Amino acid sequence: MTLRDDALKLHEDNKGKIAVVSKVPVRNGEDLSLAYSPGVAEPCREIAQDPSLVNRYTNRQNLIAVVSTGSAVLGLGNIGARAAMPVMEGKGILFKTFGAVDAFPICVDTQDSDKVVELVKLLEPTFGGINLEDIKAPECFYIEEQLKKIYDGPVFHDDQHGTAVITMAGLINALKVVNKELSEVKIVVNGAGAAGMAIVKILMSAGLQNVIMCDTKGTIYEGRTEGMNTYKEEIAKSTNRELLKGTLADALKGADIFVGVSVAGAVTPEMVQSMAKDPIVFAQANPVPEISPDEAKAAGAVVVGTGRSDYPNQVNNVLAFPGIFRGAIDSGAKAITEEMKVAAAYAIANIVTSEELNPEYVLPKAFDLRVGPAVAAAVAQAAMDSGVATQTVDPQEVAENLRKYYQLNQ
Amino acid sequence: MTLRDDALKLHEDNKGKIAVVSKVPVRNGEDLSLAYSPGVAEPCREIAQDPSLVNRYTNRQNLIAVVSTGSAVLGLGNIGARAAMPVMEGKGILFKTFGAVDAFPICVDTQDSDKVVELVKLLEPTFGGINLEDIKAPECFYIEEQLKKIYDGPVFHDDQHGTAVITMAGLINALKVVNKELSEVKIVVNGAGAAGMAIVKILMSAGLQNVIMCDTKGTIYEGRTEGMNTYKEEIAKSTNRELLKGTLADALKGADIFVGVSVAGAVTPEMVQSMAKDPIVFAQANPVPEISPDEAKAAGAVVVGTGRSDYPNQVNNVLAFPGIFRGAIDSGAKAITEEMKVAAAYAIANIVTSEELNPEYVLPKAFDLRVGPAVAAAVAQAAMDSGVATQTVDPQEVAENLRKYYQLNQ
Repeated sequence: MTLRDDALKLHEDNKGKIAVVSKVPVRNGEDLSLAYSPGVAEPCREIAQDPSLVNRYTNRQNLIAVVSTGSAVLGLGNIGARAAMPVMEGKGILFKTFGAVDAFPICVDTQDSDKVVELVKLLEPTFGGINLEDIKAPECFYIEEQLKKIYDGPVFHDDQHGTAVITMAGLINALKVVNKELSEVKIVVNGAGAAGMAIVKILMSAGLQNVIMCDTKGTIYEGRTEGMNTYKEEIAKSTNRELLKGTLADALKGADIFVGVSVAGAVTPEMVQSMAKDPIVFAQANPVPEISPDEAKAAGAVVVGTGRSDYPNQVNNVLAFPGIFRGAIDSGAKAITEEMKVAAAYAIANIVTSEELNPEYVLPKAFDLRVGPAVAAAVAQAAMDSGVATQTVDPQEVAENLRKYYQLNQ
Repeated sequence: MTLRDDALKLHEDNKGKIAVVSKVPVRNGEDLSLAYSPGVAEPCREIAQDPSLVNRYTNRQNLIAVVSTGSAVLGLGNIGARAAMPVMEGKGILFKTFGAVDAFPICVDTQDSDKVVELVKLLEPTFGGINLEDIKAPECFYIEEQLKKIYDGPVFHDDQHGTAVITMAGLINALKVVNKELSEVKIVVNGAGAAGMAIVKILMSAGLQNVIMCDTKGTIYEGRTEGMNTYKEEIAKSTNRELLKGTLADALKGADIFVGVSVAGAVTPEMVQSMAKDPIVFAQANPVPEISPDEAKAAGAVVVGTGRSDYPNQVNNVLAFPGIFRGAIDSGAKAITEEMKVAAAYAIANIVTSEELNPEYVLPKAFDLRVGPAVAAAVAQAAMDSGVATQTVDPQEVAENLRKYYQLNQ
């Protein structure tokens, strides 16, 4: 059996991966009279009088919609909403396994962004929060912006912010390895889609000054006309201040860090050799990185990260989104702020102790069960600090509850 | 503790009633590589090539949306989508407990029927079928009609058809008790909303000839102008052929059967006394019936049914919808046809053996676990017979699988 056969068999034999189950017993008439008629009328009446009580008497607050149009699925491209379903089910089980979050796929059969926004808003009575997934840029930026304005609950685009959080966590530790400061390094980010934009934004909010973004047309600079959109124009105002015009190879000369969220083979050994002393290379293209870790190392890279589980330093979103939503939900956060994302990045980075830290280990592994509770606690604290929490919680209790959930479900 | 306290506590302590869980293990990197990246790309690719395979590789076929606008919730009226959530979660757990169906609440924050139709259609990649719930008439008729035309999967409005199926099942057995034939009796149905319309239609499709519908303005007859809508006009063409104009009391004179889906107190003992010999009274208003069973009996009714669990002969939809959807799903039915509903009604009626049958027992109890498998098998057979099935199944296997599910989950 190949991986392909095994994967198809798993999906077919189990008829997909998610199920909807009851949290309360339904064994007899008495159970039914509380969970359904006539008892159910009581919470209905309470919510009718105060709509916010839907978060007290139903699972809404812990229920996250994993919303996709299927326009940018994994490395598969625009395969549509039906073909995106296996990924969204998969996302759902990761949310549950690592975050104790009930996440339900909402695959929407349109690529009209305004229709997606309208549909999600209409589902507000059902879902406490929204995780956007595998929606192509620039549509994903627009949908997220609109929903953030109007949705009663946190809205998060994981391909942007999850990836950005993990990349930042990895770079925090990689910079420790090479003994450099974020505020002093030059970073080149290749790929100006969802992830690239978010990576640049979170790093700049954490002190990065010198960054150049590249896309298929080369460096992005203020005033460029070809292949631009409003999001690239906006980011061009604060990046590449020397207005370098040229290729990715031109940009990489003297750079300290390369971050790739682009395509296989975009980076050559010569490019790595042209970088500053002790280069850091995060080649995150999936499934084949911009440059293989072996080639990057041979060309002088000190720390290499990829999106792959079969190499060291995997940039894996599962380290972030379950804990981020757990912390947001437990604090009743109305949004996921920049502070919460930065707190998540530091929480992930800090899992790797100074004794453990080395070039092959700057990021914890996907199944390191210290991560989710640490992220959830940090995010809950940051939600309270940044004024978006609606409930006061003890972050240690947030972490402890998630640890208990892991113990019960292992 | 009162029922009110207990019901609120149950809902608050459990944070609602439904959860989303994984059907596959997520214990290590190997599990992750099959259920998520990179293995998940394989079913995605298959579905991208043939969209119908979404029913093979995901849980879509067994995933039913319980769609409500909250415009007609239980006896509570138009309390809105948020306040409807506890009921829709409750419906979800009944679907699972009695039908092994994964049913998820979709509470929609609009009462614009066209928007509801558009939203549900956009969710077609996610849900294999639609159960409309607690949407007021006449909007519910329009929404169901539109969705039946365009949705790829069965669409069922339980308040109409579930109630109609159980009412029919109860009347089949009640008529045996009084030794009358459906084709020869006169029935008066009070209430021309969702349930009333569907009850009249299913009974006429099963041979009923003589029926008068009443609403708050009295009898409905062809040519009436006050308080009509297109649905009442349509039904007036085939009911009340003597064009009786008058009150419910007028209509009931000489009637064999009263079916109430209206309001408490609509029927007096005098009205029952005015009916034909051996009257049958199904007073289904909730929570307080049109006439109490004791009063109805004292006035001469031989068989009395209500919507309540604390009286004999409860007309309880849970006897129908789980098995109906189980049979529809297992046969890959594209619709729930009249034949499938009639088959469900007979399957329910036939649970009560001729030895068991008596005026106090014309309908099985909600927790009679013979019901679901019998209904599922009959509905799967009827789906194949009426040409809407897309899979050939052995009805006995459909029943047996559901029995096994009950055993595993008790």
